Amino acid sequence: MSQIDNISVVKKANVYFDGKCVSHTVLFADGTRKSVGVIFPSTLTFNTDAPEIMEIVDGVCKVQLAGENEWKTYRGGESFQVPGKSSFHIETVELVNYVCHFG
Amino acid sequence: MSQIDNISVVKKANVYFDGKCVSHTVLFADGTRKSVGVIFPSTLTFNTDAPEIMEIVDGVCKVQLAGENEWKTYRGGESFQVPGKSSFHIETVELVNYVCHFG
Repeated sequence: MSQIDNISVVKKANVYFDGKCVSHTVLFADGTRKSVGVIFPSTLTFNTDAPEIMEIVDGVCKVQLAGENEWKTYRGGESFQVPGKSSFHIETVELVNYVCHFG
Repeated sequence: MSQIDNISVVKKANVYFDGKCVSHTVLFADGTRKSVGVIFPSTLTFNTDAPEIMEIVDGVCKVQLAGENEWKTYRGGESFQVPGKSSFHIETVELVNYVCHFG
């Protein structure tokens, strides 16, 4: 699916890491929250509060989850899971479009 | 209103001007389309196809419409209209969040 249906979008974006990451929050009627965003080429560390699934919509990135030695490559159409209260390093080799699914 | 309700959002962003502008397209059931986005500090020229209303959600910008000499300042909560098949220059003094209403 190239779009997310039956949602609200928060008009004001979330801008992180000096603009390297820009996302918009989307809200479902049941209170579920996701974010749709981009990460410009960079190497960043994200901390999680809730568990999340990072769905890579487009682009290529390498990811190292906290406590793992290995960097794994993810491309458009692939996803990875991150535990809550954890973190991951992400190297975006080219512009990445993602959807972050929380909870 | 801080959010737009009852819409779909396209997962893949629109990235313009080497990343200075990032937007996500939102779609209504009746086919209406808007975009929610950010413009990083820069001076850019946008061309319009359809007429549009630029709603500044947050931030400050100066705008010069095609054929006008004057630059006008717009802040969060203000909007400006742009005719179709036209253009405008925009200087974002600080990060601008916007909603673009087409048609």
